[in-house]
This record gives sequence, C-alpha cells and structure tokens, in this order.
Amino acid sequence: MSKKITNFELFDIVLNGDEEELKELLSEEVELEGWVRTNRANGQIGFIEFNDGTYFKNVQLVYLKESSCYELASSYRNGCAIKAVGKIKITPENKQPFEIELCETELLGDCDEDYPLQKKRHSFEFLREIAHIRPRGNTFQAVFRVRSVLSFAIHQFFQERGFLYVHTPEITTNDGEGAGNVFDVTTHDTKDPFAFYGRKVNLTVTGQLHVEPFALSFRNVYTFGPVFRAEHSNTVRHASEFWMIEPEMAFCDLNGNMSVIEDCIKYCINYVMEACPEEMKFFNTMIDPTLLDRLNHVVNSEFKKMTYTEGIEILKNAVKNGVKFENSNIEWGMDLQSEHERYLTEKVVNGPLFLIDYPEEIKAFYMKLNPDKKTVAACDLLVPAVGELVGGSQREENYELLKAKMDKLGLTSGLEWYLDTRKYGGCVHSGFGIGFDRLLMYVTGMQNIRDVQPYPRTSGSIKY
Amino acid sequence: MSKKITNFELFDIVLNGDEEELKELLSEEVELEGWVRTNRANGQIGFIEFNDGTYFKNVQLVYLKESSCYELASSYRNGCAIKAVGKIKITPENKQPFEIELCETELLGDCDEDYPLQKKRHSFEFLREIAHIRPRGNTFQAVFRVRSVLSFAIHQFFQERGFLYVHTPEITTNDGEGAGNVFDVTTHDTKDPFAFYGRKVNLTVTGQLHVEPFALSFRNVYTFGPVFRAEHSNTVRHASEFWMIEPEMAFCDLNGNMSVIEDCIKYCINYVMEACPEEMKFFNTMIDPTLLDRLNHVVNSEFKKMTYTEGIEILKNAVKNGVKFENSNIEWGMDLQSEHERYLTEKVVNGPLFLIDYPEEIKAFYMKLNPDKKTVAACDLLVPAVGELVGGSQREENYELLKAKMDKLGLTSGLEWYLDTRKYGGCVHSGFGIGFDRLLMYVTGMQNIRDVQPYPRTSGSIKY
Repeated sequence: MSKKITNFELFDIVLNGDEEELKELLSEEVELEGWVRTNRANGQIGFIEFNDGTYFKNVQLVYLKESSCYELASSYRNGCAIKAVGKIKITPENKQPFEIELCETELLGDCDEDYPLQKKRHSFEFLREIAHIRPRGNTFQAVFRVRSVLSFAIHQFFQERGFLYVHTPEITTNDGEGAGNVFDVTTHDTKDPFAFYGRKVNLTVTGQLHVEPFALSFRNVYTFGPVFRAEHSNTVRHASEFWMIEPEMAFCDLNGNMSVIEDCIKYCINYVMEACPEEMKFFNTMIDPTLLDRLNHVVNSEFKKMTYTEGIEILKNAVKNGVKFENSNIEWGMDLQSEHERYLTEKVVNGPLFLIDYPEEIKAFYMKLNPDKKTVAACDLLVPAVGELVGGSQREENYELLKAKMDKLGLTSGLEWYLDTRKYGGCVHSGFGIGFDRLLMYVTGMQNIRDVQPYPRTSGSIKY
Repeated sequence: MSKKITNFELFDIVLNGDEEELKELLSEEVELEGWVRTNRANGQIGFIEFNDGTYFKNVQLVYLKESSCYELASSYRNGCAIKAVGKIKITPENKQPFEIELCETELLGDCDEDYPLQKKRHSFEFLREIAHIRPRGNTFQAVFRVRSVLSFAIHQFFQERGFLYVHTPEITTNDGEGAGNVFDVTTHDTKDPFAFYGRKVNLTVTGQLHVEPFALSFRNVYTFGPVFRAEHSNTVRHASEFWMIEPEMAFCDLNGNMSVIEDCIKYCINYVMEACPEEMKFFNTMIDPTLLDRLNHVVNSEFKKMTYTEGIEILKNAVKNGVKFENSNIEWGMDLQSEHERYLTEKVVNGPLFLIDYPEEIKAFYMKLNPDKKTVAACDLLVPAVGELVGGSQREENYELLKAKMDKLGLTSGLEWYLDTRKYGGCVHSGFGIGFDRLLMYVTGMQNIRDVQPYPRTSGSIKY
C-alpha cells in the first residue's frame, strides 16, 4: 500500500514536519500524480523533474536501470501526466532536500511531440501566445500562485476588520467618472441592440458610485471585482479588463483613509512574502534583483505625506537646480507624470509618499473640496520604482456642492440615486482604489500587465 | 475623554468580553457614529434605535429631559447621521443587553423629510425601487452581511485546501456551452462595433473552459467571479448578471468531485451559521421558519447518490402509484424539472442527493462519456426545498472523443486551445459550478434573486 500525497504535502513534511511525521513518511511508499517537467536518462540512471502544481519546487524522481520501470520512465516526454510510486530518500548533501526512487509508474496522459513548452528559456512574448500552457512553467507558476495568495490577502485584511464585501454590478447605465471610453453591452436584437434592459448600458469602469451607498449603510465596505476600459493605450501597464479593489468608509476623513491604505499595503506585502517565500526568491533572482529590498523597505517605512502644492515647489526647485525631466515645465495645476511622482518618492523622501490636496480641476467630481476652494481632499500613494500605486479621496458629502458640480459636468441625469445619499444621512466618508493587477506587478516585479493576468485582454488582442 | 467605538465592538465586549474589558468599558464614556433608525420621545424621556452598520443589532440610546442634549436629540429624524457620546448601562432585565445614556450628541448629516425608509414595513417590491437605500433596513443588513461572509467562506474553504484562485476573463470570444444567449461587447466605432479587439466578443457565461488549463497546471483551482446570461427568463431565480464559483481538479474523478462538493456546501453553511447567528435567527423568524432546521439537516446528513436511470425508475413508479407532477410523462432521456428533483430529494431520500450519470444528450459537450456510451459522468446535487444547487462532472479527457463531439456541434473553431489541453498531458479531471446568488438564497431563505444582489440586473430592469 502506498500513500497518496501531493508535492506540497511532501515538502511540508520534509521541511516543516516533526520527527514522527517524517519517520512515518520515510517508512512507506508514496504515490504522486503530476506532470513531467524534464526527463533525462543515460542508460544506467534517469531523472525526472516532476511537479503536480501544488508547490513551486519540483520533486526529483530517480529511476535505475535495474528497476522494472526504467524503460517506461525513460520514455516519458516533457509535459506528460504520470503516476509515480516510490520511496523517499532524504538528501541533505544535494540541491534537493529529498528525492524519490521510482519503483512503479504509469502514464496517465501522454504529451504530443509538438508540445510548445520545451526545456529552453522562452520569451514572455512567445509565452503570451500560449496562455493556456504557460502556467506550467516556473515564472507563471510563481505569478499565478502569488496572484491567488494576494487576492486572498486582500479579502482577509478587510474581513478581519469587519469590512463588508460588496459585489457591485458589471453592467451599468453610467460611465463612472465620465471618462468616456466604455464598452457597450448589447444583444443580437437587430432593431435595438439595447432592447434587453430597455436602455443603453455599458461595462463598469469603477464600482465606487455603487459601493458608496453601502458604506452609508454598513460603515466599512469594499469591492473587489473586474472593471473595464475601452482605451487604446498600448502600454505595459494598460489592460482593457482588470480587477479593482475599492474600499469605502463612513465617518472616515482623509487621514483615516491614508491610515487604512498604509495598513492594507503593508499587510498584503507581508502576507505574500510569508506565504510564498520560494516564489518571491524566484522573482528576486530571475525578474528583479531589487524586489525584496524594495518591498522590505516599504513594510518598514512610515508612509510620508506632502501636499501637491509642496510637491510642485520641490519639482520647480529641482528643475532650477538642473534636474532634467521629459516635461520640465512644472506648474501648479498640472497633472504629474510618472517621472515627477518617482522623483518625489525616490529622490526626495526615499520611500512611500502620500501626495495630498490636488487641484480640483485634475481630479474626479466626487472628491471633497477643501476650505481653500482650490484643492480637493485627494491622496495618491506614490512608491519608489513605480509611482502611483493607490488613489483615494474624501468624498464630497455636501449635497449642494456636489449637485452643482455634477450639473456643470452634465452627470446628474441618471445619477439622482447617487446624489440621494447626500440627502439621507450623508456623512464624512472616504475611500480608495487599488488596481489589483498593478499591485501584483509591484509585488512580483513583473514588468508587463499581460504577464500577470491569466488571459490578458488588451486593445487588438484576444485569443482565448 | 470618550472612547470611540463601533456597534460591533460594543456588543462584542458586552456579550463576549472578559470582566476586565467590561469594567474598563463601563468606566468611561463611549463615542459612537452612525444612523438613527427610529426616534421617539414623550417630553420626559426619549429613545433612539441607533446603528452604524457594523453589527446586526441596534444600540438603544436613551436621553432624559434634564439632559442638555434632550432638545437636539428629540429633533433627529429617522435616517440622519449622528455622533452619540454617553455612558453604558447594563440592562439584563431588558430586551437589549445594554443601553447608552446620552450626554452629548451632534448632527453629522441630516436626513430629508422625504426619506423613503420609514418605520412601517415595506414590501420587497418597493425596496427594490430604492436599491441604494434598502441596505439600511434589517432584512438587507442581514442579506448583505451574509453575502459577504458567505463569499469569504468560499475563498477560505478553497485556500485552506491549497486551491489556486484564478480570475478567468469576462470578455471572451466563445460562448461557453454553446448556449447562445450572450451579451456582446462593443464600442462606439460606427464602422465596426467589434473593432476594439478585431473580432466578435461577448461576456462570459462560464469560466470553466478558461480554468481547465489552470487545473492541468496547478492541480486544484477555482474561479469566483461574475458571469452573464442574456436570457429573458423573468423568474425569481434568474438574473442576467450573477456570480459563479467554478472549482476544477486534476487527477480527480466523479467520486472525488462529489466529495469536494459535499465538504464545500457543509463548510459554507456551518461557517455562516457560526459567523452570523443573529442574521440567521432573523431569517428563521421573519423569512422562512424552516430555515435553520433545513440547514442543520444538510450539514448533518451524509449526501446520498443515485443514478439518473434509477431516478427515472422511481419517478415512473411514483406516477404509477398516483403521485401527480405537472409533467407526469416520465421517460428516460428527459430533462428533470424542479418538481421531479424535489420529489427525489424530499420524498425519496429526505436529504441531499447526488443524481449521477445523466444521458449524454441533455448535458454539456465536455462531460466524460461513461463506458455504457449513453450516459456521462455528471453529478447534480439536489437539496430539499430547492432542487438543483450544484452541477458538476468529470471532463472528457480523451482527445478524439472530445474533438468528434465538438466538431459535430460546430464548436471546434476558436476552441483549439481548449482541445490542446487533451494533447499535452491531459488527465482525469473534474469540476463543478455553484451559482453563488442561488446558494445565498438557499442559505438565507430569501425567495427572489433580486433580493440577494446589491443591484440586481434582470431582463428589462436596470435602474442604477
């Protein structure tokens, strides 16, 4: 009788188990099911790098000439699914902490010769063309494991603090911030493609407007779901479909907001570093050698605060003192570019920085007007190496001010319900948004949003 | 100095805290921020039912004529946001375990006189018309709290077992099971509404096809996200946008699949009953008096198994013995209706029942053909009071069989990548789907899917 076990359970017992568990494991044969990563044999001895996807590291299967399974094992091609039964041998002197001497094996699913994932290193561009196969390689095993763990970290952070998870709708009648580039949702009805709902509908660009009424009912809430932008921005940071996290808190001002953002970012980074040490080591070695230093710096920093106006002064002085930007024409009222944000967070404070109180004109309509009547209570979190990671604000709770602004922008019609919330016990409230895929890029060091999404959707590209 | 505290924290200390914590709490003034549910005063004494949304039960605020805040407090209208400072008085003889004697208060956000949520009982139909306000009432406080907790239970169940969470895409080029009724995704490009991606795209109806390649890379995976159906089914159980949970497991056959389904359903029900006792008591009292008995019966039952063929025999005999169905024309090969499913689970086994091995013709193309060549390895979980709650199957891993079927149905073109997974180390694998909103209806006893979704989207109806 052999004991069925996964890669994860094997490594867990060998690396973390107590003596009793390890003794038991060594006393019996184990049975694994998984895939052959690589296989080489020299006529006397063979080695299979084997993985079932439950743990980042491969298990090494060893098979000997004299074993009855030598012939079958040596015939396995990369990619095929097999059953492997054998005895564990602890090998403290080797790279692997243990190996398995194969005594029985079975082919469970063969792999054609044209298997596109060969042993050589493939480019990320090539791997994007086989999005259904790439999760089997090291990089994407690591990326998608961290994606899953980071998602759960988000939920756990908010649930531990009593926040209510709200599924805001994907199909909606409003385009959120009035940004324009939305996808319409239609049916085959040839007379009226919008007949299904009886009015024009589109895919949501933000859950914020829909989640605010829940904050004004449950105090602390968050969304975490897909949003869409029909933008033709063909950059490494833009996708037309991505996941957003949008928390919203009643009786919470801008300072309270920043405090939750700081806690949330630190919690998520710590969670991933603890839960995925092998994956994070891999990223630090293969993708970005500054990654772990950078993340450790963030979790150990107190996030600084600076007003937009102070930031502009500092950038102006920097230009005066010879610092070169692509856009060196620094003026109050301008939208900061990534180069400006990075200068402030990297050169000026050398750590995470909240830039607050932005000019009203460059921020969304729902942000709270400050007493100076020129700026709004917004906060963008800037981090070294990236620039903006989180955007948030206190919301305008004054009915008249908000309505006047929405009237001016032509947004009132259809959003009367949103305005209602300011008439019925509306109160100070704040929230923020984190682009989940960009947070994942930040945490893994991956440079292209197409390489952190299972099936990326970008302008002109949709294969699966 | 008063101590800022939430409703949840207050009840938690009073009901579950140790003596030390309670003593500290009673020694100081507490400060709350939240909303007035109801307010009544008789000239001598006043009572505010107060809630900040963090806990299901209201806090009772008491204010006395001689207090300096009497006048202000008695002026508060239902729905307004207030600050309340006062001393806690434990009241074991009353309905409430404690009350707060108000000594200071402030109006934080007034509520207009036309506030639609008045003290009287409102119909669910009316409340659907104010989806942005209804979360403030008891029923929807309970529904959306359980929705959030049940979502987290799902994640926790799978993450504890090492399952990888996969964000399958919402925008896709295939319509899943060939079911037809999909929403198209278009842009304003007048020449070609599908120009953005360069081909016809629609909203996903299932994540299963996209998640299978991840099961064949990570062994155990799950999706949990929105899916869409452009069906004009105007029933209490159909919505055009809803959330689905779709786990998928490699090296797992139909029996393994059923074992995970049973564990998952029991885990979720237990989790909600433990985490939301007040909400569940409320549902049992106000919505469905059989609810808790029914749920307890499920978690304490061993789920039974029966083949579709056996089920048909039993139904035929029942009809022979005088049982009346709307459709009493029972024949092998038919699609069972809810009345048939309920008869089997309620009258025959009196508990949860897996019906397995359905005729190939009435099930989806990807299900594994059984050796009898007539049935497929499908399993539907039927439960009393509802009928089908979960649908699952082992997947066809044989490339030739699957390709022949897809060719016959005209599904191959565009799904070559899906077929690929059967060529490259494909193996026995299984999975299932749970409609999250229907699971939530089942767990709360709510009868209309429109009353468990934050902003329901159904044919002809989209207000927000």
